[in-house]
Amino acid sequence: MATPELPLSVYQFEIYGKGLGGERPLLPTSYEGLRARAEAELSDAAYGYVAGGAGEERTMRDNRAAFDRHRLLPRMLGEVAQRDLKTTVCNTTLNAPIVLGPVGVLSIVHPDGELAVARAAEEVGITHCLSNAASTTMEAVAEATPTAPRWFQLYPPNDPEVRRSLVARAEAAGNEAIVVTLDTLTMPWRPRDIQTAYLPFLLGEGIANYTADPVFRSKLEKTPEEDPQAAIGLWAMTFPNPAMSWDDLAALRSETTLPLIVKGILHPDDARRAIDLGIDGIVVSNHGGRQVDGSVAALDQLPAVVAAVPDGTPVLVDSGVRTGSDVLKALALGARAVMVARPWVWGLALEGQAGVTQVVKSLLADFDLSMAMCGVASVADVNADVLVPAP
Amino acid sequence: MATPELPLSVYQFEIYGKGLGGERPLLPTSYEGLRARAEAELSDAAYGYVAGGAGEERTMRDNRAAFDRHRLLPRMLGEVAQRDLKTTVCNTTLNAPIVLGPVGVLSIVHPDGELAVARAAEEVGITHCLSNAASTTMEAVAEATPTAPRWFQLYPPNDPEVRRSLVARAEAAGNEAIVVTLDTLTMPWRPRDIQTAYLPFLLGEGIANYTADPVFRSKLEKTPEEDPQAAIGLWAMTFPNPAMSWDDLAALRSETTLPLIVKGILHPDDARRAIDLGIDGIVVSNHGGRQVDGSVAALDQLPAVVAAVPDGTPVLVDSGVRTGSDVLKALALGARAVMVARPWVWGLALEGQAGVTQVVKSLLADFDLSMAMCGVASVADVNADVLVPAP
Amino acid sequence: MATPELPLSVYQFEIYGKGLGGERPLLPTSYEGLRARAEAELSDAAYGYVAGGAGEERTMRDNRAAFDRHRLLPRMLGEVAQRDLKTTVCNTTLNAPIVLGPVGVLSIVHPDGELAVARAAEEVGITHCLSNAASTTMEAVAEATPTAPRWFQLYPPNDPEVRRSLVARAEAAGNEAIVVTLDTLTMPWRPRDIQTAYLPFLLGEGIANYTADPVFRSKLEKTPEEDPQAAIGLWAMTFPNPAMSWDDLAALRSETTLPLIVKGILHPDDARRAIDLGIDGIVVSNHGGRQVDGSVAALDQLPAVVAAVPDGTPVLVDSGVRTGSDVLKALALGARAVMVARPWVWGLALEGQAGVTQVVKSLLADFDLSMAMCGVASVADVNADVLVPAP
Amino acid sequence: MATPELPLSVYQFEIYGKGLGGERPLLPTSYEGLRARAEAELSDAAYGYVAGGAGEERTMRDNRAAFDRHRLLPRMLGEVAQRDLKTTVCNTTLNAPIVLGPVGVLSIVHPDGELAVARAAEEVGITHCLSNAASTTMEAVAEATPTAPRWFQLYPPNDPEVRRSLVARAEAAGNEAIVVTLDTLTMPWRPRDIQTAYLPFLLGEGIANYTADPVFRSKLEKTPEEDPQAAIGLWAMTFPNPAMSWDDLAALRSETTLPLIVKGILHPDDARRAIDLGIDGIVVSNHGGRQVDGSVAALDQLPAVVAAVPDGTPVLVDSGVRTGSDVLKALALGARAVMVARPWVWGLALEGQAGVTQVVKSLLADFDLSMAMCGVASVADVNADVLVPAP
Repeated sequence: MATPELPLSVYQFEIYGKGLGGERPLLPTSYEGLRARAEAELSDAAYGYVAGGAGEERTMRDNRAAFDRHRLLPRMLGEVAQRDLKTTVCNTTLNAPIVLGPVGVLSIVHPDGELAVARAAEEVGITHCLSNAASTTMEAVAEATPTAPRWFQLYPPNDPEVRRSLVARAEAAGNEAIVVTLDTLTMPWRPRDIQTAYLPFLLGEGIANYTADPVFRSKLEKTPEEDPQAAIGLWAMTFPNPAMSWDDLAALRSETTLPLIVKGILHPDDARRAIDLGIDGIVVSNHGGRQVDGSVAALDQLPAVVAAVPDGTPVLVDSGVRTGSDVLKALALGARAVMVARPWVWGLALEGQAGVTQVVKSLLADFDLSMAMCGVASVADVNADVLVPAP
Repeated sequence: MATPELPLSVYQFEIYGKGLGGERPLLPTSYEGLRARAEAELSDAAYGYVAGGAGEERTMRDNRAAFDRHRLLPRMLGEVAQRDLKTTVCNTTLNAPIVLGPVGVLSIVHPDGELAVARAAEEVGITHCLSNAASTTMEAVAEATPTAPRWFQLYPPNDPEVRRSLVARAEAAGNEAIVVTLDTLTMPWRPRDIQTAYLPFLLGEGIANYTADPVFRSKLEKTPEEDPQAAIGLWAMTFPNPAMSWDDLAALRSETTLPLIVKGILHPDDARRAIDLGIDGIVVSNHGGRQVDGSVAALDQLPAVVAAVPDGTPVLVDSGVRTGSDVLKALALGARAVMVARPWVWGLALEGQAGVTQVVKSLLADFDLSMAMCGVASVADVNADVLVPAP
Repeated sequence: MATPELPLSVYQFEIYGKGLGGERPLLPTSYEGLRARAEAELSDAAYGYVAGGAGEERTMRDNRAAFDRHRLLPRMLGEVAQRDLKTTVCNTTLNAPIVLGPVGVLSIVHPDGELAVARAAEEVGITHCLSNAASTTMEAVAEATPTAPRWFQLYPPNDPEVRRSLVARAEAAGNEAIVVTLDTLTMPWRPRDIQTAYLPFLLGEGIANYTADPVFRSKLEKTPEEDPQAAIGLWAMTFPNPAMSWDDLAALRSETTLPLIVKGILHPDDARRAIDLGIDGIVVSNHGGRQVDGSVAALDQLPAVVAAVPDGTPVLVDSGVRTGSDVLKALALGARAVMVARPWVWGLALEGQAGVTQVVKSLLADFDLSMAMCGVASVADVNADVLVPAP
Repeated sequence: MATPELPLSVYQFEIYGKGLGGERPLLPTSYEGLRARAEAELSDAAYGYVAGGAGEERTMRDNRAAFDRHRLLPRMLGEVAQRDLKTTVCNTTLNAPIVLGPVGVLSIVHPDGELAVARAAEEVGITHCLSNAASTTMEAVAEATPTAPRWFQLYPPNDPEVRRSLVARAEAAGNEAIVVTLDTLTMPWRPRDIQTAYLPFLLGEGIANYTADPVFRSKLEKTPEEDPQAAIGLWAMTFPNPAMSWDDLAALRSETTLPLIVKGILHPDDARRAIDLGIDGIVVSNHGGRQVDGSVAALDQLPAVVAAVPDGTPVLVDSGVRTGSDVLKALALGARAVMVARPWVWGLALEGQAGVTQVVKSLLADFDLSMAMCGVASVADVNADVLVPAP
């Protein structure tokens, strides 16, 4: 991801460049335009599953408002003709401080699902995080995209044997880190999904990583292929883990040498406790406003979490990132990188791999330009000086 | 209302569960969706009577905004697999800190009216508070739902003999408490009702508890069945009580051994004065924004009222409670329980008893999940730690 | 305007009472409903003339927002069965702290114009303030409504002889005070009027008080009846007075023994200077947001103006008063009374005198009830205790 | 631009005056009305190019909100019958503190383009600033409008020879100052333009000042007339200048004796550094919200920039100025003058020169009236006393 001197952003040039032949971009390049097209073209159930949040969706809205509580302060005539977007998370270099966050059952928005996402990530050179609840197994994704930088996301199941098997497979599939989601040990209250009776997991979608798991399979009398309902039933018994404890997290820590990043942290004390257990990184997140309606915006908690953990601990943030300037604000508030999801999910839903690619390139271009126009040439140099509080 | 270990909320499971057969829920599970359907399906007069507030409805909107002035702070990996929703109000154990608030003349939104509500409350095991101005007598409701936990709400009439008779009947009908509404000693300024010329009481609706009252009947020359207009006329002379004083409240206190809870308190001094008179509990309320346009949000006054009364005094709150996270916020600000009304009235209007049941179960599920995801396993343990002020 | 014990507000009873026969009120009783009907039924030009404000109408919106920056705090069981709405302004007793503010050329919204307004005021017993720019002469209005409490509003013309003649006629017509508008010494920038090319004065409307004036007529070669264009021309030369000075105000002060109230004051220093010149009262006003877009809300300046003038000086406020609770808030912030205009102008436009009457009675009922529910029985007892700041 | 005593604003009189014959103004006189008509009548691409901003257009909205964070405080009976709108910027007297800001490729909204704008500016007597990227050469504009006060705006190209040639021509064409835009050294992320594949420059529009430049032409093998694509190609190599440094600005300073004003400054340190290099004036600007989405509002930075530079340094502001009261607020916060663009671009797009003229006269009238009604008779006397902070 070297950035040439002219123009500032290679991806911007590519996207604008199509206009020379009168060619419009595949997808809208504003987030709101993208979302609106998705709303118009997707089924209510698929749109609602991606767009929806918990309860009255107040936290979803506040996640966006939190970014608006900070303003960027552009600088003129900085030495920004060459920029460096690279960053390091858990000893791994990322080409940009943007990770494609984990999203389950992507087959419901596009038949190419997670494979299209991984291919787009590989094409652009950006890290993606495969969901535990993907429509496709981690092995299939790894085989299809051998050079894609990859992380694996885990909802720790309540069966330690299955957990260990998933972790071992994640290591074998070449993942650079495991992201452990802590905020979804049960299903939340999401009116849109309830309204559309949308339960893909119970129809057998999004459980591929389980049905392909040798330990999981060993617990079934018949194979999932022979008796799909029994597999779904066992999944439904194994997946929810509301009793998961800090001791369980410690056990998981002992089961892998991969970096472990916990996702879903909002309280500084929880962040500190995780680090004390040997966890390597934190994703400050409210799951995109999908868990607790009325809960605090993730970005608002970021500075306190950063302050609570030892210097150098990689703290990421998600929930509400939509534009390049959002990424810059998050970094200025202490994030090492961000996770982003809904924007590229709309891209996938509307145009498959090419849609994901455009969305990601747009986000990179926008971030690259925003950083440059704030007078900063390197991600490593971003700090709070680029921000002023909103009046 | 035991909560099984898996899934977290039994009611959530039941509601989601219908989706397995492709069955959509009877009613929208977001409040806004529910309200919108009611607006589409009800008559202007019935919708306006329930939805409307005083004046330009500024207090109604502020009641909602008051909840948004607080944010919940989720915690990870708490010991929340088992939760306890029980609470105690005036020596009575409630299965959940949610009481169905008193609403008059429910026959205007559904023919089953208060009976459907009481049956839903009995089915779910939650306390309901029958309005003094119900379409059905308290005795009929008690007979139809013998095991429903019940409170009786009283607008103290200006005739002490009628008042004493109503109180004695409330005791006899098995109510666990009497809720004395203080904020409606006369009719307020509600433009929607005026606009639709909506005066159900003067058409004889909502006065059943009077026309069935032996003392009230003894003051009529002919029975209400023989001369309905005379009964309405006497009701119109007896019901309004703008001259009611603190001495009258003291008199009422002396007339029953049931717990007395006063409803409509907003000023801490009024709360203290009531407690000094021997009142057992307080409902901080602005009557859902239906009395004084531009008045303070009830939730905003809750902490000051809690601080003003002796430790242990049960303080409830209503006016604006719509979701489970609203309930959690109210409890975190010091409420022992909440009253809720409009949500289940829409449920009643649209689907009768089954509608009320779904709304109440949804609210319980949402509250149960919100509490769990904030790391709290028991209503008794909810405190201000789950809140952060809105930025 | 005695208020009977039951129900609290006689006008509320009257308006609700119509519902008994299934009769709906003549007009919507919410301000927003009233405004919306007017928008639907009036011509663009007439609607725009009344509804419009200066520039982008930011001050108009802020006038409303200013009322929302204060919340009323209801009290229970106050001794409010009997209320007293009377107040005193410049040694005159007003039946209520509500004055119908001056509005010019009312013939443009209804053929009965100012006569209908004065008759409604007389019917209800409330003070009205006839505009200098009325469609009807002050003498005609006085003759038609001999018992109506009346004030006269003056835009001081640049010709002192005409000014003195107008003042002498106002005295002779039985006005109890003269309200001198200071904020309109020239035409402001009102896009709606410019857009509709709406210039009633230059078409001869709204200059009746000039064309009937003996001094003004003496300056014309032909009578206005013979040569209307010449009269309009002289009016256009006489009316604007951008060079008016404090000395001119002092001269006006010396020319009448009637109380003089200046209207349009926003800066405390201007209020003090007026009082120092012998002015009797102040109307804090931004002319309903019709003069300077982006200027401060009138209500926001009220406390500082009250603090700047000697104790006991009557300070009124207008600009944004729409409901009874607005009136109560203004009084709590130090106003002796309020002026109100747009609400009853819509009433006039839609239903003539009966429309004005309904709007005024509604406002009185709403104010009476709001005051009572805040535990205050008398306008004289309203103070800042009924308010809490908006959070 | 002398202002006669009656009426206050000569332009207001002219615009209102048309109403006497029932003639409506050519264009809406509210900004919002003007914008809405433009949206209705223009092509998506042309409308989007003018209306659009960076990213999700948050900065565009905040630019407007920044003006709403200040309120004007009208004063009564000031000596304002005669006003003086003149101001001085870099030793040049401006008839009003309003400059028509630089906007490129105006041919895309109206065939008369920059010539119509210059003619309107000449007609009204106001300074306009021709864009470097105009559709018409600076020489053609100067020839057509010999008496128009003119400034020239420069995007410094990366070729110093071309830069020097452009500067020399700007001097020769009678410009009174050169405005050096610093915030657009590359193309920003503007979703509307990307969406409509709108790239006028790459189609040869807006590069007239280059193709007519003798130095630029000398670098081409064939003339632009013979080989337009080659000229476009060279322009695309010459125009972007992301590596421009403070040293380059110092070099430019040494190349002309004309006043140099830098535009795009938001940080006080950048302002100070420019002044230290010998720059004569500053335009605080975020390019109308078109560069960095989420960046600080220009008006919010104005006071800090004014404080950072030596007393007497002319500091202008743009980005969000829409009305006369906006101009007054900017002056009260320390601006010597404002630049304004979108309002008159809509005027141009809809009605050519006459449209620009109306918009400019409207803005002058509104400003003149707003200043007078705040009790200030001269631009030189405007100060912070006319403002109160928004509550």
